[in-house]
Amino acid sequence: MGLIGGSMARDLRRTRFATRIIGVESDADNARRALELGLVDAILPLPEAISDADVVALAVPVDKIAELLPAILSAIPEGTTVCDLGSAKKHIGQLVENHPRRRNYVAAHPMAGTENSGPDAAMERMFAGKICIVCDYEKSGPQHLALIEKMLQMLGMNIAYMTSDEQDHSTAYISHLPHALAFALANAVQSKEDRSIIFDLASGGFQSTVRLAKSAPDMWGPIFSQNREYVLESLDAYMRHLAELRDSISGDEPKMYELMAHANNVRGILAGENSSLIRDEEKIVKLYKR
Amino acid sequence: MGLIGGSMARDLRRTRFATRIIGVESDADNARRALELGLVDAILPLPEAISDADVVALAVPVDKIAELLPAILSAIPEGTTVCDLGSAKKHIGQLVENHPRRRNYVAAHPMAGTENSGPDAAMERMFAGKICIVCDYEKSGPQHLALIEKMLQMLGMNIAYMTSDEQDHSTAYISHLPHALAFALANAVQSKEDRSIIFDLASGGFQSTVRLAKSAPDMWGPIFSQNREYVLESLDAYMRHLAELRDSISGDEPKMYELMAHANNVRGILAGENSSLIRDEEKIVKLYKR
Repeated sequence: MGLIGGSMARDLRRTRFATRIIGVESDADNARRALELGLVDAILPLPEAISDADVVALAVPVDKIAELLPAILSAIPEGTTVCDLGSAKKHIGQLVENHPRRRNYVAAHPMAGTENSGPDAAMERMFAGKICIVCDYEKSGPQHLALIEKMLQMLGMNIAYMTSDEQDHSTAYISHLPHALAFALANAVQSKEDRSIIFDLASGGFQSTVRLAKSAPDMWGPIFSQNREYVLESLDAYMRHLAELRDSISGDEPKMYELMAHANNVRGILAGENSSLIRDEEKIVKLYKR
Repeated sequence: MGLIGGSMARDLRRTRFATRIIGVESDADNARRALELGLVDAILPLPEAISDADVVALAVPVDKIAELLPAILSAIPEGTTVCDLGSAKKHIGQLVENHPRRRNYVAAHPMAGTENSGPDAAMERMFAGKICIVCDYEKSGPQHLALIEKMLQMLGMNIAYMTSDEQDHSTAYISHLPHALAFALANAVQSKEDRSIIFDLASGGFQSTVRLAKSAPDMWGPIFSQNREYVLESLDAYMRHLAELRDSISGDEPKMYELMAHANNVRGILAGENSSLIRDEEKIVKLYKR
């Protein structure tokens, strides 16, 4: 009942996709708070909560998803749809690959969130206009897929379809890498002797870069571990580019300007939200369409 | 007449600190636009513009400040106050160290801005609540210092006093380093083969981390060059911390969690704006007070 689960509960109630929302929450304070905030109608132990649910949505760290998903698939009634909402998908997909209820499961990764957590971080319309990656859709039963697609539509999300491998590779660069950079920046700055001056002066540029360093280790450790291969690939690529920039600052001004000018290209690319989704219909078919 | 100069012009007119504002702008389109937007009353060539100005504010890249400041100090009437607004201060301070008009000059670095540039990027109240670093104040004449302090107060800024060396050292970590990281991130992501997927998926975390990579090379190249020593120090410190995190992800989970937990400390530190300014009065006296 945190940022993701709580925000989803708010929207699914508001849009009347859900008539009754049951939360499962191991932390007593969070459970109380989720009820107080009206995020859920009840908090129940997991076995009871899923015993007659139409949809089970797993909004927990990816190591907990890996632990819970096989057991939940084994426990649900025949017609129940299960989705997870984690940021790494390949490892979890492999775990349930041969599960008899594999087709009840839809692998979803909503690309939305903030650096905050807990029931109080939950907000309405957090997912609106954002992208949800749905992985390996052909492994889900059509009725289960349709129900999750409907749910994502109620959240106002656009859906991109790809394999778990594609999702983990892209998400390493777009999300896991920026988090790693922010963690390292926070540590580098704290290691400076007169760091208090730095924090006093912390300007907008620093704040926006370091924001992700506030993210919860319990959420991010398992992501880094499950997606280790691609996270390391993206980090190694990044470290090469950073070393190149460093060396150019050290003694090659023309190169330094060239690297910055190249970096500036992100301005055009990021200018329109999801610009190439709109620009290049052919690619959509190939990469994103079911 | 860009982001900094234009925003300052807007506020100094609004607060009636300035009765007449003259712009100097070498780009014809920007000059026209600055007049259209009412940022300035006139655009004049530099010699005429400074011939009877009370205050001359240099809002240009730091290489241009280095080029113009000595000449401007030589050309101004005896009572004119000159300030610059650049992000690197030591090199420029050394250039005018022995100038006969050194005391007319106040070295100021407003820690405010966006990744945008040009007259259209100028906005009211951009400086409000932000910090301006004033360097080596004892080298400025008291009347010149008082006038610039008054001007910064009109912009709504808080002033931190320190040496040029302290400012360049701290600003390397707080501002120059995050810009370097963003440039490298933009390049790393563009080097990925299927980069279009990444940009389509670009989420809030990526956008906020890469935002600074849109910054102008003509502004940032000279900053990196003038503050090379401390920029390289901060980059090397950062790269050590990043390598440590990378290696922990690769095979030392307890260490990985330890590094993330340590990074999380920025949450408390950044929670209140300028928290230690408020917390530790003794330090203010030492580092920030005149």
